[in-house]
Amino acid sequence: MFKLVLIRHGESVWNLENRFTGWTDVDLSETGVNEAHMGGQLLKQEGYTFDFAYTSVLKRAIRTLWIVQDEMDLMWIPVERAWQLNERHYGALQGLNKAETAEKYGKEQVKIWRRSYATPPPALDWNDERHPHFDRRYAGLTKEELPACESLELTLKRVMPFWYASIMPRIKSGQRVLIAAHGNSLRALVKHLSNISDDEITELNIPTGVPLVYELDKDCKEIRHYYLGDADAIAAKAAAVAKQAEKK
Amino acid sequence: MFKLVLIRHGESVWNLENRFTGWTDVDLSETGVNEAHMGGQLLKQEGYTFDFAYTSVLKRAIRTLWIVQDEMDLMWIPVERAWQLNERHYGALQGLNKAETAEKYGKEQVKIWRRSYATPPPALDWNDERHPHFDRRYAGLTKEELPACESLELTLKRVMPFWYASIMPRIKSGQRVLIAAHGNSLRALVKHLSNISDDEITELNIPTGVPLVYELDKDCKEIRHYYLGDADAIAAKAAAVAKQAEKK
Repeated sequence: MFKLVLIRHGESVWNLENRFTGWTDVDLSETGVNEAHMGGQLLKQEGYTFDFAYTSVLKRAIRTLWIVQDEMDLMWIPVERAWQLNERHYGALQGLNKAETAEKYGKEQVKIWRRSYATPPPALDWNDERHPHFDRRYAGLTKEELPACESLELTLKRVMPFWYASIMPRIKSGQRVLIAAHGNSLRALVKHLSNISDDEITELNIPTGVPLVYELDKDCKEIRHYYLGDADAIAAKAAAVAKQAEKK
Repeated sequence: MFKLVLIRHGESVWNLENRFTGWTDVDLSETGVNEAHMGGQLLKQEGYTFDFAYTSVLKRAIRTLWIVQDEMDLMWIPVERAWQLNERHYGALQGLNKAETAEKYGKEQVKIWRRSYATPPPALDWNDERHPHFDRRYAGLTKEELPACESLELTLKRVMPFWYASIMPRIKSGQRVLIAAHGNSLRALVKHLSNISDDEITELNIPTGVPLVYELDKDCKEIRHYYLGDADAIAAKAAAVAKQAEKK
């Protein structure tokens, strides 16, 4: 039996400002830093350790990982940063205030973009300075790989090939793997691991900073999963994340 | 023409206690943290950027790198942690106070261990809990690779194969490389790059936290090298490092 641990980064400075973030590389807020420390301490207390860690190329996930590594005295383990584990790309909404966006496009339309499985938000223009081809960290991507916007479905389509090509073989080789990533890239993994339907996955809120443990069989199919820590506190966190999404 | 930047980690908590460190995984002191910040700020001010970073598997070098990455907004670049870039292994002296060691073995003997190119310090016994085979981060090493003590010459013998196999090809491919490491693993690289004799290299003190830039030709041979920052401050730092080595 294998164990895989997922951790979602905590509050970022744009959460505070209630702006659509996506691939924008904003940092953790002080609260987000504290959440990461608590997640790391929890993993340490529960006797977890890791051989390898994955994260995205976005600093809010990387810093979360760094803090967890520091808390667990695992700064030395190898780390792979993968753009495939980035947050969903929020297209032309990136940087916009959520309340303003609701006023501009209508509350219902924004809800569709936020909560539909297959409908992407409006795409970024190729010449828009927010387009990822202007960012050299994505220089290795093909034009087809570079997103201008993503639905959750499209997010899955770049997370899953990376799962099969890199993460799953590593777990099967016996390495204990930690993934520090984002709400939607983790949703993609959880959808696959727990075999959740398209409709249900958009309603699933992964609490931030709480280690999510998957026990997997020899084929990397889920045996069971659970969060570390106090159940009530976790439920409160998930509710807060859901509420954040509705906040004006 | 290629550029390679080396940075030596700053003061550790065992520097403060004047103990032989080697492969012991001690953290930076507050001063060491500040040195790393200054090094990162200097690189940023001078317009440097990197595509890839190497460090050791020891947290004083990794934390130095993390701080530099953070200062330069380069948390996203790939990082390889390599045991081959570790500090020289100080054998049975690891953990001992330098003054006590001088009393026990004699000042002259300690000076030989510290400053001779080819004489290693006393070896750790295989059953000594400080022996690296007890540390799972070295689980992938063969018995021949696992050091029980190292001279500077022996340090070179594991740094250089890594240079040829991994670092040099990466530089030749056009990637801008940063290496955050230790006094003696960096001495090994500097000895090679600047073609320094066995006798002279042991007298060369690389200042801590100061970016050392190598300009290299297409064969990765040195064209010239220089430190970033104020020349007087750097000279004072090198002198301080030399003095530290003599401190009782």
